[in-house]
Amino acid sequence: MNVSDLTEAELIDRIRSRLPPAPDWVAVGIGDDAAVVEPARNRQEVLTVDALVEGIHFDRAFTPPAAIGHRALAVNLSDLAAMGAEPRLALVSLALPAALPCTDFDAMIDGLTALAARHSVQVVGGNLTRSPGPLVVDVTVSGAVKRRQALRRAGARAGDAVYVTGSLGAAAAGLQMLRANGATTKATERHGPAASISERCVRRYLYPEPRVRSGMLLSRNRAASACMDLSDGLADAVTQVAAASGVGIRVDEEALPIDPDVRAWFTARGEDPIVAALTGGDDYELLFTAHPKRARRLQSLGATITKIGICTAEPAVTIRYNSDEKPMPRGYSHFA
Amino acid sequence: MNVSDLTEAELIDRIRSRLPPAPDWVAVGIGDDAAVVEPARNRQEVLTVDALVEGIHFDRAFTPPAAIGHRALAVNLSDLAAMGAEPRLALVSLALPAALPCTDFDAMIDGLTALAARHSVQVVGGNLTRSPGPLVVDVTVSGAVKRRQALRRAGARAGDAVYVTGSLGAAAAGLQMLRANGATTKATERHGPAASISERCVRRYLYPEPRVRSGMLLSRNRAASACMDLSDGLADAVTQVAAASGVGIRVDEEALPIDPDVRAWFTARGEDPIVAALTGGDDYELLFTAHPKRARRLQSLGATITKIGICTAEPAVTIRYNSDEKPMPRGYSHFA
Repeated sequence: MNVSDLTEAELIDRIRSRLPPAPDWVAVGIGDDAAVVEPARNRQEVLTVDALVEGIHFDRAFTPPAAIGHRALAVNLSDLAAMGAEPRLALVSLALPAALPCTDFDAMIDGLTALAARHSVQVVGGNLTRSPGPLVVDVTVSGAVKRRQALRRAGARAGDAVYVTGSLGAAAAGLQMLRANGATTKATERHGPAASISERCVRRYLYPEPRVRSGMLLSRNRAASACMDLSDGLADAVTQVAAASGVGIRVDEEALPIDPDVRAWFTARGEDPIVAALTGGDDYELLFTAHPKRARRLQSLGATITKIGICTAEPAVTIRYNSDEKPMPRGYSHFA
Repeated sequence: MNVSDLTEAELIDRIRSRLPPAPDWVAVGIGDDAAVVEPARNRQEVLTVDALVEGIHFDRAFTPPAAIGHRALAVNLSDLAAMGAEPRLALVSLALPAALPCTDFDAMIDGLTALAARHSVQVVGGNLTRSPGPLVVDVTVSGAVKRRQALRRAGARAGDAVYVTGSLGAAAAGLQMLRANGATTKATERHGPAASISERCVRRYLYPEPRVRSGMLLSRNRAASACMDLSDGLADAVTQVAAASGVGIRVDEEALPIDPDVRAWFTARGEDPIVAALTGGDDYELLFTAHPKRARRLQSLGATITKIGICTAEPAVTIRYNSDEKPMPRGYSHFA
């Protein structure tokens, strides 16, 4: 049975049946012309939208439907994390190919709602339409942040240290592994042990964990002077934060947190693991800067953090290995 | 020059250059990981998303880019109107075919921002990506409404009168005219006189005017017991309002506001003009119900309104001609 065998109302019911009861701040949920919600008290609202398009952002040949749903929400939660916002609600707009099996539709919604539940995100509305081509999953999310505590790309000052959460390059390696068809079926499932390096990398690509808690803590304890997520790679993020803040950034190559197995994967393929880790997208980690005096506040962020460089008055964005300093390679561009 | 010749940043700049300065309730606008806004004071927030997909909702062969941009926002403003909300902001997510000319991109944004400006809607963010297939324009809007004043589909009671704004069927006729290639070039422009009936119908299809002011007034003066927009046709709207409210609705065929020229167009094509006007989508009018005692409050809604029927305790949804009463024909479904 495909989605084209069901009416729009039946598909909406399949989504609704997967949602928890609405919290009391939802005055009108799914099923009217629009949703009505009570804003969070004494908070600013943080809004973002991001689309996953089949053939551009994912390949259904090796991306399980649950991962498509998970990633469509995760990329948005990562943007909220980068602002330090607490996620609140989502609107889900789907353009569905007629031949999409209902089991895939259900699994996609399950992947999205499972991640939503873990972050207390309420799906309050959306839209369903047919697509004559690719599957398109467009998600809008809204979160809340205290006034003047939103983390921006602008705000870094010369002398601030530059940090990154987690590790780099594993998602890019995972995507290569999936493309090379070397990934095990096991790794494409969200749960269960991921014993091998390839299973771990594939899972990092398919089920990224947005750094929501770290972003909220960075905002609350006023530790970060600037912040951005790595959706388009570290090189891009460093360049954007530097430009928005009017500073330069010098990254220490040796400090980059790259798993030795990930290094080995890229090296075995004849790729420079540093360039791969700098320019590979899909690492939904946070890049942030902090005044050296605030280093103590950076403990207990709920994620490993690594100091990878420093902000400079000189506006160049560079990467240093020993005493050799080179321009930062260009990042991945979603568009060109 | 096509959009694929430009970077994402250059395309974003082309959008930003078309926007007015942000109002002071926008703390962070386009250009960061997410937008940050101050919620409207003492209001609930009304949120909705709607996508226009090439090949499903529009045909680029006869839909000018400005009309695509206009309609993508209009369909969303119509949903806010149906809730009685005052529009506030929009997020615009675009999936762009590589071969889309930049002039078409610009015209599409111009069409959207022109309508946004007329309704004081601020574009605070969005997303740009490539599409391997159709052009997809996904717009999320947010509006504000006083607590307990949002208009719902539920709320109609037996004995309430049923009203519709404006007139029916002209947009459906306009779409037929465009498909038949009989529409003049002049009619595809938003401005300038529209002398002929075909020009007027084509314009109704291409540049629908969402009933924002009428919706807000219906909410403020507490005149309506239920409300919904006609995006999927009157038959669908009547059926939905009746189901949500737990009443029946009897529509008087002779009362339906159909332009005589529109009647003549359908009749000349061998179609029943009543069925065409009931089931044709793209009329972004409002259907609402009101207690008979509130009829006086319905003056000065900023739109022609017509009483077309009555809510009944008996749950059937019917249409009556003289003493002959038939079931309501089924409306257009976006999905099946």
